[in-house]
Amino acid sequence: MSFDERKKSRVTLLDVARHANVSRATASLVLRKSPLVGSETRSRVEQAMRDLGYVYNIGAARLRVERSQIIGAIVPNLTNPFFAELLSGIEEVIGETGKVVLLANSGDKVERQATLLQRMREHGVDGVILCPAADTPPALSEEIADWGMPVVQVLRHISFDMDYVGADYAAGMRQAVDYLASLGHEKIAFAAHGPVQSAYQERVDGFRDAMLSKALDPGILIHFPAQLGEIASATHLLFDQATRPTAVICFNHLVALGLSAGLHDCGLTIGRDLSLIGFDDVADEEAIRPKLTSVSTGPVTIGEMAARLLLERIANPDLPPRRVVNDTALHVRESCGRPM
Amino acid sequence: MSFDERKKSRVTLLDVARHANVSRATASLVLRKSPLVGSETRSRVEQAMRDLGYVYNIGAARLRVERSQIIGAIVPNLTNPFFAELLSGIEEVIGETGKVVLLANSGDKVERQATLLQRMREHGVDGVILCPAADTPPALSEEIADWGMPVVQVLRHISFDMDYVGADYAAGMRQAVDYLASLGHEKIAFAAHGPVQSAYQERVDGFRDAMLSKALDPGILIHFPAQLGEIASATHLLFDQATRPTAVICFNHLVALGLSAGLHDCGLTIGRDLSLIGFDDVADEEAIRPKLTSVSTGPVTIGEMAARLLLERIANPDLPPRRVVNDTALHVRESCGRPM
Repeated sequence: MSFDERKKSRVTLLDVARHANVSRATASLVLRKSPLVGSETRSRVEQAMRDLGYVYNIGAARLRVERSQIIGAIVPNLTNPFFAELLSGIEEVIGETGKVVLLANSGDKVERQATLLQRMREHGVDGVILCPAADTPPALSEEIADWGMPVVQVLRHISFDMDYVGADYAAGMRQAVDYLASLGHEKIAFAAHGPVQSAYQERVDGFRDAMLSKALDPGILIHFPAQLGEIASATHLLFDQATRPTAVICFNHLVALGLSAGLHDCGLTIGRDLSLIGFDDVADEEAIRPKLTSVSTGPVTIGEMAARLLLERIANPDLPPRRVVNDTALHVRESCGRPM
Repeated sequence: MSFDERKKSRVTLLDVARHANVSRATASLVLRKSPLVGSETRSRVEQAMRDLGYVYNIGAARLRVERSQIIGAIVPNLTNPFFAELLSGIEEVIGETGKVVLLANSGDKVERQATLLQRMREHGVDGVILCPAADTPPALSEEIADWGMPVVQVLRHISFDMDYVGADYAAGMRQAVDYLASLGHEKIAFAAHGPVQSAYQERVDGFRDAMLSKALDPGILIHFPAQLGEIASATHLLFDQATRPTAVICFNHLVALGLSAGLHDCGLTIGRDLSLIGFDDVADEEAIRPKLTSVSTGPVTIGEMAARLLLERIANPDLPPRRVVNDTALHVRESCGRPM
């Protein structure tokens, strides 16, 4: 069928709306399965679609007109600069399409996340990039599928039935452990932080596997508090262990920043008295002295990848679910030395 | 008029919609002056309003039903943790109302800001908290007034015809200068950064006035680059001046963080070789060593105040425009000493 033929034969949403005696906006809400439309109106519009032979997934031509031009992004914690960098990657890609990104903070709370998803759904956002809150039930992916709302999971996953973009956290842990082992460290601690979710589990498991592969004891796992100031004042936890570590791998940027300050307060020189490796390598780490050796997970790149996957998912809802995992890289600077 | 009488006499938007043969959603868009409604439909709905005597600003009863339950927030730079703290204050207040906050990043670009405002307007957000991009023309406030969209300016202002919440930047500069002068400093530099906008101008003017009131030369004003890493490597600018300063007041958190790292790289000890005062006092400053003496502008409090003003503006669109300025406070820590 040529473009012209298709054009002539195509029943538009406006035709449906007129037939059902509703506004085009209302017909569009029915298409998007919006809960804002009452059941009587919904039935009338659906009947009109059947009467006129309106094809729901008519492809690009339809997509051009049905969109709200808004992409939602939901993250668990805006005060971690990691998420600001992730967002800049998302905006870089989405900005080229004329759409805008609206960001919301779930505070890592499942109920708040549910409200945000509901609000975005009511407003017919084109799609959502979601870093799922800790304790999100995997069944959320089925609910989202029922809604027909395109969603890409980022950094954390609850189900591989939805697209996912993250980093190879386990490989990052291996790079950190291998580097420290090459300097002669055997007593390496993992400084953890935050609630359990997939990215947490993959880092902890990655640390354990990397240590075991070097025949080292993976038992020094210390959990640090959530707030930056509290991390610094909990630095002594590193020295309260049965085995005193000579090197520490941090869960993320916040832990590295807190321990960097806390070790200074203990009168220790990082890189000489204790080796420290960061994780994430966000721009703020540039201001840590001594300069921090860190595993880069590439938040900007992950944001770009997630945005591209979401645009593809919007254009082609029938694609099978995909998993994209960004490579990590160890950036060696000044915070590690040989064990004393 | 009693509540019951008012209830009986009130013509609802649904009545208007039925009379005009449009959906309630369309009638609501007309009320909000949405550009999504064609002129023919708009006229029909407006005629129906006149026919039925529908009262536009009917107050709280109407407000309960007309709202999208979304508050927009537009900031110029998400990678500055100042804005994450501002947002947490906004969310604290808005969260209690059942509404959600959707955040957007203008990148300090006027065109991008226009697109974001337009998109928020199309979706009938209840109101917007706006930190205007640098170079925003003051006429934007008239345009926003024409739209009938409740907007509160935060941190920066383009016109006092719209509500504004900020900090007393001039008082903060005076606190910093007075403290350094009390330690014996006479050669005090101002380390500026970023584009000119009202908060920039108020800080620069505040610094100048405070210096002049102490009969000190306000001439050491140095402009540092935008990126954190570039600030650190531009630290030498402090020593390229005709008069070498013994103390530096930073424009904001980013400048303090960059100079803190850069002075370390120069082999200087902050608080002994050079005194440094930060501005904003965000949580990330807790990790700077030596601990940074800083002027707190209270981003969380400003966010809370802006949210409260916006909710009042939404409930009562006819309030005269208001200006709220938060007090600043100098937090003395370890980064200042007597001049060498």
